[in-house]
Amino acid sequence: MKWKVRIEIMLKENILDPQGKAVKGGLNALGYKNVADVHVGKYMELIIADTDNQEDVNKQVDEMCQRLLANPVIEDYTFQVEKMEG
Amino acid sequence: MKWKVRIEIMLKENILDPQGKAVKGGLNALGYKNVADVHVGKYMELIIADTDNQEDVNKQVDEMCQRLLANPVIEDYTFQVEKMEG
Repeated sequence: MKWKVRIEIMLKENILDPQGKAVKGGLNALGYKNVADVHVGKYMELIIADTDNQEDVNKQVDEMCQRLLANPVIEDYTFQVEKMEG
Repeated sequence: MKWKVRIEIMLKENILDPQGKAVKGGLNALGYKNVADVHVGKYMELIIADTDNQEDVNKQVDEMCQRLLANPVIEDYTFQVEKMEG
């Protein structure tokens, strides 16, 4: 069975986000004065094959985020797992 | 009225994604052989204030993606808009 996994990785709330601040400044300078806050993170889409049980996929993705995809000291992550057709 | 906007920005399908390839290689090397494909993109969370109409928010976010947040020549974007409490 194949699974599509979508992962969002963001800096934790109390960590300085200079990229978000720069994007907010750029948008405000373009005239979008109503943009009050911006945070920039990473987004990943993974295909996981050869796994029958969604619980196993959840467990594996959590482990991969901890070990490689995110930096759990400064980043939070969330993910959604969806079964693929065929 | 305040709105929370979540934006995912990904390279278009036929554009080479070396970062995704590197992450896939890293996961496979760590023993996660069932990771068949990885694509890496950007994720942004914006707060938009002082706008009453969700249609106006959608229109503004689309325009901001075209002008600054994404590169429409090589990237696709999707976004969700959600009304914030209070």
